[in-house]
Amino acid sequence: MDTIERGDAFDPNCPTRLVLDRIGDRWTVLVVIALRDGPRRFTELRRTAGGVTPKVLTQTLRAMERDGLVTREVFAEVPPRVEYTLTPLGMSLQTPIRAVIDWAEANVGKVMAAREASHLA
Amino acid sequence: MDTIERGDAFDPNCPTRLVLDRIGDRWTVLVVIALRDGPRRFTELRRTAGGVTPKVLTQTLRAMERDGLVTREVFAEVPPRVEYTLTPLGMSLQTPIRAVIDWAEANVGKVMAAREASHLA
Repeated sequence: MDTIERGDAFDPNCPTRLVLDRIGDRWTVLVVIALRDGPRRFTELRRTAGGVTPKVLTQTLRAMERDGLVTREVFAEVPPRVEYTLTPLGMSLQTPIRAVIDWAEANVGKVMAAREASHLA
Repeated sequence: MDTIERGDAFDPNCPTRLVLDRIGDRWTVLVVIALRDGPRRFTELRRTAGGVTPKVLTQTLRAMERDGLVTREVFAEVPPRVEYTLTPLGMSLQTPIRAVIDWAEANVGKVMAAREASHLA
């Protein structure tokens, strides 16, 4: 496949939509932030991203690895140690994802208040 | 409900997670950008967010209205005109969402190339 120079999120045939789905996923967002300071083990990530099941975390990390956002390294120890690290591409997600999380944390009160007050189902 | 002063996306019991799901949704993202310059009708939004079905666009707009991000106004014309407008809260999403879309459009080539090259399913 030729490399796409620049995508268009408004074009239904452009894979930018698929990329949006990936980086909009709540667990991807939390993993990107959890890896900001360096490599982490699976169990550390699981603890940081509270509430994620091992199965979903595995799927999230595999999808991120496939998309070039994280690398997975296995150390031949007993028991084997597996570490995940953001690639430079994954690290470049820090800024936009931090902006989204900051918005969500700052405005969750307003959104939930609107939801409570709404007559809509 | 008491207003939440500030959320914590890493706390599984915090509704920030629900807010992340909403603003991470691909159609919400596209609607926020499509409404940046002022009110738009349903049919205009449908055309801008290419590929969205009427049902999904209706669900997206209803959820955004419920969460205080858009208002819906019906004008008594024949046929009735329905317009959607971002609230100030919805408008404040422009910056973080623009950052995410810019990242996706700029990096879709790298992500798709990684996906093509990957041995992972």
